[in-house]
Amino acid sequence: MHDRISSLGEKKLISRIISRARSVFGSSEVMGLGDDAALIDAGEEFLVLTSDLLLETRHFPDPGRPRDMGWKTVTVNMSDLAAMGSRPEGFILSVALPDLELEFFDSLMDGVIEACCHYQAPLIGGDTNEADEIILSGTAIGRAGKDRVLLKSGARPGDLVAVTGPLGVGAAGTELILSGRDRGGFENAVERSLRPVARIEEGLILAESGLVSSATDITDGLVSELGELMDASGTGMRIYEERLPLGREVPEIASILGRDPLELALYYGEDFELVFTAPLTGMEELSDMMELHVIGEVTGGGGIEMVDKDGVTYKLHVRGYEHLSPG
Amino acid sequence: MHDRISSLGEKKLISRIISRARSVFGSSEVMGLGDDAALIDAGEEFLVLTSDLLLETRHFPDPGRPRDMGWKTVTVNMSDLAAMGSRPEGFILSVALPDLELEFFDSLMDGVIEACCHYQAPLIGGDTNEADEIILSGTAIGRAGKDRVLLKSGARPGDLVAVTGPLGVGAAGTELILSGRDRGGFENAVERSLRPVARIEEGLILAESGLVSSATDITDGLVSELGELMDASGTGMRIYEERLPLGREVPEIASILGRDPLELALYYGEDFELVFTAPLTGMEELSDMMELHVIGEVTGGGGIEMVDKDGVTYKLHVRGYEHLSPG
Repeated sequence: MHDRISSLGEKKLISRIISRARSVFGSSEVMGLGDDAALIDAGEEFLVLTSDLLLETRHFPDPGRPRDMGWKTVTVNMSDLAAMGSRPEGFILSVALPDLELEFFDSLMDGVIEACCHYQAPLIGGDTNEADEIILSGTAIGRAGKDRVLLKSGARPGDLVAVTGPLGVGAAGTELILSGRDRGGFENAVERSLRPVARIEEGLILAESGLVSSATDITDGLVSELGELMDASGTGMRIYEERLPLGREVPEIASILGRDPLELALYYGEDFELVFTAPLTGMEELSDMMELHVIGEVTGGGGIEMVDKDGVTYKLHVRGYEHLSPG
Repeated sequence: MHDRISSLGEKKLISRIISRARSVFGSSEVMGLGDDAALIDAGEEFLVLTSDLLLETRHFPDPGRPRDMGWKTVTVNMSDLAAMGSRPEGFILSVALPDLELEFFDSLMDGVIEACCHYQAPLIGGDTNEADEIILSGTAIGRAGKDRVLLKSGARPGDLVAVTGPLGVGAAGTELILSGRDRGGFENAVERSLRPVARIEEGLILAESGLVSSATDITDGLVSELGELMDASGTGMRIYEERLPLGREVPEIASILGRDPLELALYYGEDFELVFTAPLTGMEELSDMMELHVIGEVTGGGGIEMVDKDGVTYKLHVRGYEHLSPG
């Protein structure tokens, strides 16, 4: 009778918005809806546009580091550009802020500007408001070649699936920070959590190669994003536990915190890597050009499966996983 | 020692961000910074981009009307496009929401999509998050001719100053709603507050005429925006009280609420009109093409002055006004 949006979950909520928009606007008008970023025709290229909003209380494990908050706000948006294989062109920042100390505010803005410099995306506009907590909403603008832009759709059965770097590191770092435990020896994981770096160069290499059939970033969790590629492409996915490139510190941090390292690598998010698919020959070519780790293959259907170290096949869901067959 | 951002105020805060950005990026890279929207080179045209964030508790006098909240979120962004004389091309919505009833959520989205249709700007992307209150962050994308785009800078002494419609109506409607009093007879003012309409067509006429020397929208209040034109153009401004086109219901609503109608018209904001400057001959040409009300003229300097009905000249400040000379 009075259903709430929590009964749908974020994915179904977004699908609900998209289907409402698609019923009203022509499909050529809403290119990119459901992808990591929107596409606007700009003559010979696409302009690529994305918007992500972060809240002090939900997206920053250590809100005492304003410079990192500014950096991360830019980076989460740049990661969506990377996922589309686009080159950053500018950044717009809308903020709503409580009455911060000016020093804190300046550090926040230093982090934004530092990141804009790093990604070569000048800060070109913005808006300020008052609020009870810090709200940072970014819009990133990039460009991509029309026949080169990376989309979630296009994976074909038989293609290989790869990621651009280690898994679970951002998750482990974030959980370590939230636990309040000693961070000594785990500086890399902490840094990956507080100052992640978007894979812009990798996205450009993938796009310019013309070898990639589908791609996205895994900031919302690897399995969730595999689901996105699968749904957009109308395929299935199979990954192999022993091929997952867990970050070297992930097992130790997971052990300290009593967490499952695999869960951090598969479901948590906070890793700013890309996941993509390409045919075998294309993947071989790409492996000469950049770091990549093949973790599985695209299948004809049947959802997302994981083959564990004993050869047992599990069915993975966007949240949690269940036993499929006893091997 | 520990100054807070409230000691600066919004304008100085924005100036602070802009000067930090300008010290880092080239001026050609940050075109539009400080204007209503950012400009991106798109070959023969500019892409015009703006982002505005609205909060349930601060920007919506009647949060029981979700459809209007959605509409207004789109409209505040479209008003920035109108101020630049640009044609809408798309809209991106980032939301952070508490666990709303699905019916409320659907109405909110219906309002967004209805407005996107009205402005012919398809919903092309977005992002969802959880939050304790409703946060709606929009990004509007438009196009403008490179030699036609309307900027805040360019007003020259001797130009006339005009607005596109009545003043104080949105303010009076908003205050009436917030007062909880009977709205009977004031449906127009209430509608202007809850479902404002951005002056896209008027902006396009102004831009395409090539007759306008500077322009902006007055959603933040007429005097504040005159100050923006003045600062960007290096001029002064003089307006005449008897020329101000107060909305017909504004004096009555102001009287019911014990408010100064002039204060509602000059300082409150919530009117989605444009203010612009043009030479006398240009203004005459424009007056044949659209509704406009000349309210004053651009001066060589000396801030913003208002000549009252008795011929007494006041100096206006962005907040409040003080006596300048006894006439």
